[in-house]
Amino acid sequence: MDKVLGIDIGGTSIKAGMFSTEGELQATAQIPTGEIVGEADFAVVTEGLKKLLEDNGATADDVVALGLDVPGPVDDSGKVGMLPNIKLDPEGLQAALKRAFPHANLAFVNDANAAALGELWQGTAKDASSFVLVAIGTGVGGGVVTDGKIVSGAFGAGGEIGHITVNRDETASCGCGRKGCLEQYASASGIVRVYEQECAARGTEPVALSGPTDTLSVFNACSTGDEAAQAAISCMCDYLGYALAQISVIIDPQMYLIGGGVAGGFKLFDEELHAAFRKYCLVPSKDARILPASLGNDAAMYGSAFQAMHG
Amino acid sequence: MDKVLGIDIGGTSIKAGMFSTEGELQATAQIPTGEIVGEADFAVVTEGLKKLLEDNGATADDVVALGLDVPGPVDDSGKVGMLPNIKLDPEGLQAALKRAFPHANLAFVNDANAAALGELWQGTAKDASSFVLVAIGTGVGGGVVTDGKIVSGAFGAGGEIGHITVNRDETASCGCGRKGCLEQYASASGIVRVYEQECAARGTEPVALSGPTDTLSVFNACSTGDEAAQAAISCMCDYLGYALAQISVIIDPQMYLIGGGVAGGFKLFDEELHAAFRKYCLVPSKDARILPASLGNDAAMYGSAFQAMHG
Repeated sequence: MDKVLGIDIGGTSIKAGMFSTEGELQATAQIPTGEIVGEADFAVVTEGLKKLLEDNGATADDVVALGLDVPGPVDDSGKVGMLPNIKLDPEGLQAALKRAFPHANLAFVNDANAAALGELWQGTAKDASSFVLVAIGTGVGGGVVTDGKIVSGAFGAGGEIGHITVNRDETASCGCGRKGCLEQYASASGIVRVYEQECAARGTEPVALSGPTDTLSVFNACSTGDEAAQAAISCMCDYLGYALAQISVIIDPQMYLIGGGVAGGFKLFDEELHAAFRKYCLVPSKDARILPASLGNDAAMYGSAFQAMHG
Repeated sequence: MDKVLGIDIGGTSIKAGMFSTEGELQATAQIPTGEIVGEADFAVVTEGLKKLLEDNGATADDVVALGLDVPGPVDDSGKVGMLPNIKLDPEGLQAALKRAFPHANLAFVNDANAAALGELWQGTAKDASSFVLVAIGTGVGGGVVTDGKIVSGAFGAGGEIGHITVNRDETASCGCGRKGCLEQYASASGIVRVYEQECAARGTEPVALSGPTDTLSVFNACSTGDEAAQAAISCMCDYLGYALAQISVIIDPQMYLIGGGVAGGFKLFDEELHAAFRKYCLVPSKDARILPASLGNDAAMYGSAFQAMHG
């Protein structure tokens, strides 16, 4: 039976899913890894994947496609760019996988793009031909789909929507070195940063936070009437709605999906985000839908598998 | 012999080109029209096209594809939206054309999108898989191509790059009702408007202008050392470079083409525009090329034909 593997590469482990070619997730495995740079490391990955298959009645020969997502740029030709956050030799791993799974088409995908493809295959965007996934986590990533295909970009920067400039008056620098990026206000760390600024401006005490990306506590504070928390969420909605309006005058997608950790609070900011988008967008695009993504942390695993099948 | 017709619909006439399926422009005709809303008007168009074919050794039966561009939105499904600047019944014309050219695949395309497709077929973008045409005329239009296909948009607003917001502090309104759109600074009328403002601020006399879109005189003034003209062109370059940088973080195209009337002055602002783009863009996209379009006023005619063949 033909199988497809989708693999989400993290800093300390990889998460692998075994799919049917129709997109049914049949089994998953977590494989602990360190850096993935030498033959011994590659063998940990290939053996872990073979075990997943064998535990579920399949073999390496059944694998027709195998996709991996990476936290960094992958250009239109499938070439992996710089990966600042993980130790991975993509070419070495690719060669090892090619030997272990000789019938498989291999593909690397950027992680946010993979999440978008997952939503396209089996998630909220299943019947959409154009949409943009906004992945709000520590940063803001994105996946742009037009005509049913991911737009990786000629230089691998397609979907870097966290770096749309939304405030030309910002004095603090973004991680990218530029100033006033969406990510500075609408990421988990951005929401917490703005919340703390709003508390300071009001002379109020912030609620206890478990860390610099603890938006859950900010959302909870908002629900109980914390004005600084409400202001931080309004700031996020305003800048995010503004950024989506800029995307709409360029590619005018059918829908936007909000994914990543912050998506859990979608109901809390749904209305305000819609209102901000409609305030800033060009009239024809005002009916674009804004919806929560549905596959959660599994989206990239689904999308990596999909890309390997169709890329 | 199979023929393809590309038709550029203007306010007082249509310009039609007869092409081979390989993209060779074999003959053109200008057909005077008024409004195109009734059977008599449609007959003027169909008879004019038949004469173009017959004068050049072909017949209506040879036409395998027939594309028309319109100055307004056309969505992903090919449906024509509101056309404020011309009197045209697209459905009536389509039915008349279907009767006159029974073997032809018909397609409507937005004019800026058609110009982009023309450049993709036979112009500067011939080998590109992703690029954005920036058509600078009275306004600023655009055509976005990803993976070799035009992005019309779910609501027909794809490529409306003249409405990217570049200045949130603007107090004057754009034609779209919003404020601070690229078009307010980088269109022909925008350049002239900024030039006149710069002259007023300096207390200098503007050069004689033939009208509100006479950028040629502004460019000439710049070449002879007019500081207000230089300031207007710098303003255009800064906002346009900024807008292209926003496009790059979303779809990251290989190249940008500058078309429309202002493209004639490309050499004058080439360097300054590149510098502005590189100042604002995310690092990986800094090698995106910015080039002049090459088909001039014929681009939309080429692109309409191409879309009808491939759409």
